[in-house]
Amino acid sequence: MTQQRRITTGKPIDRFYSVIPAGGIGSRLWPLSRADAPKFLHDLTGSGQTLLRDTWDRLVPLSGEQRIMVVTGRAHRAAVETQLPALADPNVVLESEPRDSTAAIGLAAAILERREPGVIIGSFAADHVIHNMPAFQAAVREAVAAAEAGYITTVGIRPTEPAVGFGYIHYGDRLELPGAPSALTVDSFKEKPDLETAERYLESGSYLWNASMFITRADLLLEEIGRNRPRLLEGLLELAEAWDDPATRGPAVDRIWPGLEKIAIDYTVAEPAAAAGRLAVIPGYFDWDDVGDFASLAKLNSGGRKSDLAILGENARVLSDASSGIVVSQSKRVISLIGVRDIVVVDTPDALLVTTSENAQRVKSVVDALKLTGSTDVL
Amino acid sequence: MTQQRRITTGKPIDRFYSVIPAGGIGSRLWPLSRADAPKFLHDLTGSGQTLLRDTWDRLVPLSGEQRIMVVTGRAHRAAVETQLPALADPNVVLESEPRDSTAAIGLAAAILERREPGVIIGSFAADHVIHNMPAFQAAVREAVAAAEAGYITTVGIRPTEPAVGFGYIHYGDRLELPGAPSALTVDSFKEKPDLETAERYLESGSYLWNASMFITRADLLLEEIGRNRPRLLEGLLELAEAWDDPATRGPAVDRIWPGLEKIAIDYTVAEPAAAAGRLAVIPGYFDWDDVGDFASLAKLNSGGRKSDLAILGENARVLSDASSGIVVSQSKRVISLIGVRDIVVVDTPDALLVTTSENAQRVKSVVDALKLTGSTDVL
Repeated sequence: MTQQRRITTGKPIDRFYSVIPAGGIGSRLWPLSRADAPKFLHDLTGSGQTLLRDTWDRLVPLSGEQRIMVVTGRAHRAAVETQLPALADPNVVLESEPRDSTAAIGLAAAILERREPGVIIGSFAADHVIHNMPAFQAAVREAVAAAEAGYITTVGIRPTEPAVGFGYIHYGDRLELPGAPSALTVDSFKEKPDLETAERYLESGSYLWNASMFITRADLLLEEIGRNRPRLLEGLLELAEAWDDPATRGPAVDRIWPGLEKIAIDYTVAEPAAAAGRLAVIPGYFDWDDVGDFASLAKLNSGGRKSDLAILGENARVLSDASSGIVVSQSKRVISLIGVRDIVVVDTPDALLVTTSENAQRVKSVVDALKLTGSTDVL
Repeated sequence: MTQQRRITTGKPIDRFYSVIPAGGIGSRLWPLSRADAPKFLHDLTGSGQTLLRDTWDRLVPLSGEQRIMVVTGRAHRAAVETQLPALADPNVVLESEPRDSTAAIGLAAAILERREPGVIIGSFAADHVIHNMPAFQAAVREAVAAAEAGYITTVGIRPTEPAVGFGYIHYGDRLELPGAPSALTVDSFKEKPDLETAERYLESGSYLWNASMFITRADLLLEEIGRNRPRLLEGLLELAEAWDDPATRGPAVDRIWPGLEKIAIDYTVAEPAAAAGRLAVIPGYFDWDDVGDFASLAKLNSGGRKSDLAILGENARVLSDASSGIVVSQSKRVISLIGVRDIVVVDTPDALLVTTSENAQRVKSVVDALKLTGSTDVL
C-alpha cells in the first residue's frame, strides 16, 4: 500500500532531482530551429508555451521547482531564464560549447552528487512532446524506485506504430522491484530500424521506443561513465569540485571543458549498462514524440489525419486548396497552397523551406550545405 | 520585288500604328502579379526589362517610337511612362476603369482614325513573350499588307506542341494577297481545348495558336464593332471626338466610359469577322507565349528541360536538392527546396504561393478567394 501511494501521489519525490539537458538545435527542424532559436525554445504543439516550459511543467510535480537543473549553452541563458523564472540560479549549468550528452548529464550528476550524496537524478530531453501527465509521472515514479534499487533506469514508450524515426529498447524479464512493479530488464538498445524491422519489433511486443530518459542514482551514473571513459569522468569530477565556488569555476571550465570527449550517453552508459544487466526499463503508456522532423511535427499537429493541413504560427494567414501536410508560419504573410500533398512549408523572416513529409529527414543536409556555402546568417 | 523588300526591311511601315493594351493584371501569376504590379510590369524572362518594354522594343522597328499608343489604367501611368520614356504624350490613353479589350482597342482605333483617317493599326498584348524578332516583324509586315487589302488580320503562331492553355485558329485557304504571300482565310476560332483535341489540332496542321494580335485598318475595325455592338461603337466615337481637347476629354470620359459594354474583342470583332470571311491570318514562325500561368513561366525559364529548377529573381538565394519547377524570389530570403518536383514557389514580401505546374491554372481561384475573404491587401 505504501508503495502504491508513492507511485500515484502528486507530491515531489524525496531526494529526486530532474536534469534537463537543453542543448540540441534540432537541425531537422530548420529554418524554424536555429542556433539562436533551438527547438526547445519553440512552441511546437500550439500549447502556447515552449517545449522547454512544457518539460519544466511536467517535472515540477516530480522534483519540485527547487530541484530541477538545466544544462544549456551560454547563448541560451537569458532565454532559458525567461522561460523558467522559478529556475534556481545554482541549477543553471552553462556549457561554454556543446560536448554531447555524456558531458552534459555527467556534469549535472557530478555537481548534484557532490552537493547531496546519494541523490537520484532523472534526465529528460528539453524538446520532446508528452501527453498524459499522470501516466508519465507514474512511470517516472516507478523508475525512481528502480533507481533506488540500484538500477540505471529508463522509461521506454510502448510503440503504437512501426516508427522508423526512433531507437528501440529490447526488454527481457520482469525485475519484481519494490515500488517498480512493471520494471523490466533491458537486453539491448536498437538503432532506428527500417520499416520491415520496425514492423517486426511492433508485432513481437518486446520492444519499446527509446525516449532518452535516464533515472539513476547520480553516483552509479558516474561509476558507469568511469567504467567506460575514465578520463571523461575525471574531467567531470574536477569540474564539479570547482563548480560551486565562483573563483574556481571559470578557470576549471576554461581548462577542462574543451578537452572533454564528445560522446552520447547511449554509448557511455545505456548500452554498456544494458549489456552488464545494470539497466532497467519502465514501460510508459503515454503519447510521446521527439518531434525529430517536420513529418513528425505535421502528424503531431494534424490529429493524426493525413488529409489535413496542420498550421503552426500565431499570425498564420493560410489559404489551402486541396493541400495537406504542415505550414509553419512565423510571419503575417498570406501563404497559399494549391494542390500540394504532404507538403512542408516553413516560412520564417529570412528563410523558407519547401519539402515533403517523405523528405523530412533530409532537412539536415540543407543545414550542412548552408554551413559549407557560408550562409551561416540563416543557421 | 518591291513587296519582298517591304517585308524584310527594318524601316517603320508607312501609316502603321501599334497599339498596346496594357490592362490585365495576370491573376494566374499572383502573388507576383498584383493590381499595382500587373504582369506587363514584370521581367518574366530574365531579360532585365519588363514585358511592356520588351513589347515596345519589338514594335519600334515596325511603327517608330512616335506611332505607338498605350492604353492602360490611370494607376499605371507613372510606371508605364518610366518604362517607355519615348512614349509620346498624346499616345497615352488612360482608362478610368477597365472595360475589356473591345473598349480599349476600339477607343485607340477611334482616336487614331480621327487623327489620321485610313490609318492601319496593330494591337499587341503588353505581356506576351516573343523570341525571334525578324520572324515576328516579317509576319506583322505581311499582316499590314493583308490589312491594306481590306482584311482584319491576325498573326497565328505555328504550334509546336498540343498546348491546352491557348486558343486556336482554324485556318482555310490561301488568300494570295499582294505583299502577304502567306495570308490565309480564317474559318473559326477555338477556345482552349482539352489535350486530346489539342493533339488532333497539332496533327491536322490546320490550326494556329491565337496570339491576340489584330492588324487592321482602324475604320474597318470600328465598322466591325458597329455591326455587332452599335451602342458600344457610338460611345467610342463620341469619346474619340472629345479626346484631343483637354476641355472636353474629362467630361466625356466621366459620362461615357463607365457605361461602355465590357466585352472582349474576340466576340465583337474576331469571331464575327471570321464567320463573314473578313478575317485573314498570317502564320507566325516564332517562339511565342502568353505566359498565362506559372507552368508556362517555368517552361519559359528552364530552357524546356523539365528536370530543371528555373529561378527568377535578382537576389534569389535558392538551395535545391532533387527539385524541379520554378522559384520566383522577390526577397533575399534563403529558399530551400528538398525533393519537390514540378513545384511552383513564389516568394514575395507579403504573400507566398506554393503549388505545382499541374495546378497552375487554379491560381486564379486563390485570387478570387482572397477577394471574397477581404484580403485585398495582397491582391
